[in-house]
Amino acid sequence: MSTSGSKDMSRRHVLGALAALPTLPILPVLFGASVARADDAPPPLPSWNDGPTKQAILDFIHATTDPSSKDFVPAEERIATFDQDGTLWVEQPIYTQIIYCLARVPVLAKANPHLAKVEPFRTVLTGDFEKIAKLSLRDFETIAVATLTGMDVEAFAAEVKAWIAEARDHRWKKLYTELTYQPMQEVLAFFRANGFKTFIVTGGGQDFVRVYSQRVYGIPPEQVVGSALGTKFGYDKAGRPFLTKEPKLLLNDDNAGKPEGIHLEIGRRPHAAFGNSTGDRQMLEYAKAGDGARLSMIVLHDDASREYAYGPARGLPDTRVGRFPQELDDEAKKGGWFIISMKDDWKRIFAFE
Amino acid sequence: MSTSGSKDMSRRHVLGALAALPTLPILPVLFGASVARADDAPPPLPSWNDGPTKQAILDFIHATTDPSSKDFVPAEERIATFDQDGTLWVEQPIYTQIIYCLARVPVLAKANPHLAKVEPFRTVLTGDFEKIAKLSLRDFETIAVATLTGMDVEAFAAEVKAWIAEARDHRWKKLYTELTYQPMQEVLAFFRANGFKTFIVTGGGQDFVRVYSQRVYGIPPEQVVGSALGTKFGYDKAGRPFLTKEPKLLLNDDNAGKPEGIHLEIGRRPHAAFGNSTGDRQMLEYAKAGDGARLSMIVLHDDASREYAYGPARGLPDTRVGRFPQELDDEAKKGGWFIISMKDDWKRIFAFE
Repeated sequence: MSTSGSKDMSRRHVLGALAALPTLPILPVLFGASVARADDAPPPLPSWNDGPTKQAILDFIHATTDPSSKDFVPAEERIATFDQDGTLWVEQPIYTQIIYCLARVPVLAKANPHLAKVEPFRTVLTGDFEKIAKLSLRDFETIAVATLTGMDVEAFAAEVKAWIAEARDHRWKKLYTELTYQPMQEVLAFFRANGFKTFIVTGGGQDFVRVYSQRVYGIPPEQVVGSALGTKFGYDKAGRPFLTKEPKLLLNDDNAGKPEGIHLEIGRRPHAAFGNSTGDRQMLEYAKAGDGARLSMIVLHDDASREYAYGPARGLPDTRVGRFPQELDDEAKKGGWFIISMKDDWKRIFAFE
Repeated sequence: MSTSGSKDMSRRHVLGALAALPTLPILPVLFGASVARADDAPPPLPSWNDGPTKQAILDFIHATTDPSSKDFVPAEERIATFDQDGTLWVEQPIYTQIIYCLARVPVLAKANPHLAKVEPFRTVLTGDFEKIAKLSLRDFETIAVATLTGMDVEAFAAEVKAWIAEARDHRWKKLYTELTYQPMQEVLAFFRANGFKTFIVTGGGQDFVRVYSQRVYGIPPEQVVGSALGTKFGYDKAGRPFLTKEPKLLLNDDNAGKPEGIHLEIGRRPHAAFGNSTGDRQMLEYAKAGDGARLSMIVLHDDASREYAYGPARGLPDTRVGRFPQELDDEAKKGGWFIISMKDDWKRIFAFE
């Protein structure tokens, strides 16, 4: 997948011209390797329906990677950023990291039995999802501090790694890491095959996502930007240095925090950005406002039967998680972003379908 | 340079065995490509004198990249971190970024003439280095805020880019970017040729170093971790989004801040770390404390004739910049770090020599 659609076409054009020549034994030597690769490689984005959205991706890659293009970007400068929840994997009915935090509460209560008598932990331990959903933002912060801070960063990573290897969602009964969108996995691979560095820029915790990003998305931990708590350097009893996760928010990587986080950890404006909700708005604006060819794309969840449908743009139901209001729809149209309709643009949603 | 010294030796052993065989036409086909590369490639680290320090680098690379080694590290996990000032380039008599800030004062004073009447700017504008050197830390903070904040991040990058392309140091009359240590450039290249991602982890400003890191060190901006100010997202009059550098210290990437910054922006413990002063101590401890083969190295500036000599370890003169006290020397020996003697380990210091 080292060629865009347009490049494929121009290569086919060259091949057509060669076919008109007398067959010379030298041809396979001259053209063999690259022609064989172009022919053997499957066309990019197989899970996408043909149409303006898919074409916009192919055109962007062509414009930025063809050396003769006025918008050519040197390989070392190619940066693309992707929101995670609702853009790369399912975010409904609630973010996976919140499910992780809730799942940690019984573990903590076993080690510290007094927690069972204290709110909001007592409510979480009932396992009554209706009641848990009614907890306040402050309650969720208390749960987050209890489950995400106070431990060695490497111990935290081990806890997440063990949980994410086994925990399954309620609707599909699949591992959460199987609920990534196949068409977006193809976009990640297509961008990387064309020299782009792909980054996750998530409102979720970067320490959480970094545990599985390489395995699940092919994105190394250092290419995950997310909400970040501070850490504190110290020594254990044996004198071994370690870092403790602190209850101090260093980066709230959502809304305006996304371009700020991109500047902090990447240091330059991305050429392409993908999101799905108001939390991605500023990142999409920031990417699109750069010089040359820029691509901002936003996933609209309009497929209730295969995944979920929520807006409230276009009369879709409103949700607490991942809002896509009408004004975002309007800004997308006005600003030249592309809206990815899960229903219309994606042949399939998951790899397991 | 895809092989370590030890691998070179084992390849030579194989070659020796092959030489004893009758010459067969098939040999170049079987062994041609890789043998040719091993023979053609110059040995790594040519500016290093042979000895235990150079050997430690070769051994570390061999241990972490030979698939049969018990300490083999998969390519995607290979991380090495390098301090900049005093480790990759000259830091005496004062950090280059401070010279930049001082050089910006006349530019600012031209735009805002009232500055010329206010301290510490008045003192800076005298150009009297003796007086400037006596300014307090608070004065330098005032100068830093005036010269490093309040502007668009991209405008700042353009200012640094223009300055660093022309500014020259006083001793060698060279561009600052020519004052990188050739032996360390070779270490960067050698690590990368062996699949390591190289990061700069600097006490200096990451926005400053990122401007030239790709060109000077082959390290892309997103692989520079440094002291970081917050930014603020906003829109200009045309509605174009941009980020303003704020006078809010987000990360003080020095001392314990180095491992904390590594966790924030890289997300895992490096396998190798290089530094030169007390500011690198915790980073070197942190890298060395990981499992498997780890390499912590510290540059001792003991070459007054070719560069500078300062400690105060080993009776070398003390300086305000880049201190290497006796206790650090002691910890290095006790902790299994390697001390790089510029005088003894490096054949030459600069590429222009």
